[in-house]
Amino acid sequence: MPIYLDNAATSWPKDPAVLAAMAEYLAAAGGNPGRSGHTMSAAAARIVFDARENIARLFFCAAPERVIFTKNATEALNMVLFGCLKPGDHVITTSMEHNAVMRPLRRLEKDGVHLTVVPCDSTGQLEPQAVRRAITPRTRLVVMTHASNVAGTIMPIAEVGRITREAGVLFAVDAAQTAGSEEINVADDNIDFLAFTGHKGLGGPQGTGGLVIGEGVELPPLIYGGTGSLSESEYQPDFLPDKLESGTLNAVGIAGLGAAVAKLNAGDLDGIRWHKRELMAKLIAGLQDIRGITIYGARTPAHNAGVISINMAGMVCSEVGLVLDRVFGIMTRTGLHCAPAAHKTLGTFPQGTVRLSVGPFTTAAEIDQTLNALSQIAEKVRCGL
Amino acid sequence: MPIYLDNAATSWPKDPAVLAAMAEYLAAAGGNPGRSGHTMSAAAARIVFDARENIARLFFCAAPERVIFTKNATEALNMVLFGCLKPGDHVITTSMEHNAVMRPLRRLEKDGVHLTVVPCDSTGQLEPQAVRRAITPRTRLVVMTHASNVAGTIMPIAEVGRITREAGVLFAVDAAQTAGSEEINVADDNIDFLAFTGHKGLGGPQGTGGLVIGEGVELPPLIYGGTGSLSESEYQPDFLPDKLESGTLNAVGIAGLGAAVAKLNAGDLDGIRWHKRELMAKLIAGLQDIRGITIYGARTPAHNAGVISINMAGMVCSEVGLVLDRVFGIMTRTGLHCAPAAHKTLGTFPQGTVRLSVGPFTTAAEIDQTLNALSQIAEKVRCGL
Repeated sequence: MPIYLDNAATSWPKDPAVLAAMAEYLAAAGGNPGRSGHTMSAAAARIVFDARENIARLFFCAAPERVIFTKNATEALNMVLFGCLKPGDHVITTSMEHNAVMRPLRRLEKDGVHLTVVPCDSTGQLEPQAVRRAITPRTRLVVMTHASNVAGTIMPIAEVGRITREAGVLFAVDAAQTAGSEEINVADDNIDFLAFTGHKGLGGPQGTGGLVIGEGVELPPLIYGGTGSLSESEYQPDFLPDKLESGTLNAVGIAGLGAAVAKLNAGDLDGIRWHKRELMAKLIAGLQDIRGITIYGARTPAHNAGVISINMAGMVCSEVGLVLDRVFGIMTRTGLHCAPAAHKTLGTFPQGTVRLSVGPFTTAAEIDQTLNALSQIAEKVRCGL
Repeated sequence: MPIYLDNAATSWPKDPAVLAAMAEYLAAAGGNPGRSGHTMSAAAARIVFDARENIARLFFCAAPERVIFTKNATEALNMVLFGCLKPGDHVITTSMEHNAVMRPLRRLEKDGVHLTVVPCDSTGQLEPQAVRRAITPRTRLVVMTHASNVAGTIMPIAEVGRITREAGVLFAVDAAQTAGSEEINVADDNIDFLAFTGHKGLGGPQGTGGLVIGEGVELPPLIYGGTGSLSESEYQPDFLPDKLESGTLNAVGIAGLGAAVAKLNAGDLDGIRWHKRELMAKLIAGLQDIRGITIYGARTPAHNAGVISINMAGMVCSEVGLVLDRVFGIMTRTGLHCAPAAHKTLGTFPQGTVRLSVGPFTTAAEIDQTLNALSQIAEKVRCGL
């Protein structure tokens, strides 16, 4: 069995309930949800509805119809950014963002949207007051990650949410790295848009994700088309979720995601958070003891979402990753992790880092084996082998 | 076992190879394709690459990187329509389109795009010369379905492709109802954009689909974000497929789709086409013999993609569908099928129709049972029961 420490890219393995739900969907439901009225289409619609309800519950969203399914978090973020921002608007983000946020923003800059990137410190942490100071009368939106995909740093979204609400500015959170392991409360944290992916912490399959839209917030569609509703009209329906869910949903993927989220709601979330913190405490302590390793990111487990970056003196990161994979069977991700701004903040641009990320199925023994492997590599590098 | 005649909404059942490929993906590959360099990510990337190659081969596309994966055909069509059309441009479509085409076009009209809807006859057929006559110097694009999702009518795309190529106009085809059962050759048919869904004729799972882009044709992204490539840049890469595939792909769905398309390429396509034609010949002949049934659509099996619409005198379509489902266990789709323009063309707006659509797993015996059920219902209606 490989040691899989790339859960920040996609979680693995998945709970057996996920594949079981997908297989059951394909075998027995199988219709197109919300399209036809027959038994199998209704069964498919019920599965999608249950998943929507479970996700709403997980994020403390009172209205399940405000949970919009997308193919991934990137689509959800694009829906928010292209839907909210017009030429002349001002938008604020942080220097720790993934390209799922930065690339749409750089594109919007070309259309005349003004962008402020608030710098974070060298551990990736944001000072919330820096966001307040960046707000101008033209500011329409603050968009930021809940935790860095490079350094694991958990950001102060509750504080930023208070600032944006007070200022009357919309607040969008990229929860790609935290949904399913950190508690997120869209109401308490004043989050207008929560973009999430299904295939990382939530434990679902790839091809799933979505957007939770706060009460009273409007958003135009990014994609127009058939919704199975208002079939008599060539214009998009204006009610949720249909307005923002054009075309056939990934119902088989949603079936798997729904099964995973039901388990989180049944009590797994707390257990997973503590499990990840224990693993990170062990991992970070062990890494600090290995000569030649530099750690980047949040070293306090309570402020880390289960991701840490390292480099090893005398060896480029891609080579460290290759040896971990080929010699030790340990899967990590090396390079820039689609987040050049974050690496500039951490001081690891353009060389990148080796990223280690844990998941609910990672064991303490695997952390020991990984530390042991890294010690061996560091030792060989020191001896010039 | 239900009799499933709703294959135009989504095909069911799927070949067992589809679930097997998805299960194998989740168990053994499982990494994020194109993101990390490790063994499991590489295995995932290889599965996606193989699927891309198989789809390219199926549609006679010489360059697999010009096959773009999307979540559904609707996203692919939106990418084309919002990517090609600017205020002042003229676009031509037909009166048989699905809302996946009509709703984006109606939205674009509000931005100043000029739209001509070429009328089809009462069987849903298009006269290609009517497209030629509609072309103006401002015409940028012709977009049309390959076959009606209401009436099954196969459209003369080869003829329209010759006309658009000659006129220097882009040509987009919505192959949602034909991919996987009719031969489509993007090169010979002068198709610049082929939008396809994975979960109907191709036999894959929901959540898959894509766009084949012709040689020499450019398209901007609809969605910007991380691509696993050019991670040092906050700007979208300009090479295919990455330029148009932001965020994590539905690799587990693509694994299933790839398995299905590999079987089509291995020779199943011809068999499926003939099987569907035989079933449609039997179905249409039988329907013509039932007193009180009106048929809408293409009655010649060679010109029908496996879909036909009917109504029954004295009973609304939703009730016919309900009785077929509850009494006989036969799954059909009733109503307007997300295609109001098509129903206006066929003369069935706003009441709709009962739609029957066959697939590779439909049997002749099931057609007999369906005809028998419809005869019984028609008989009861005639007797006023």
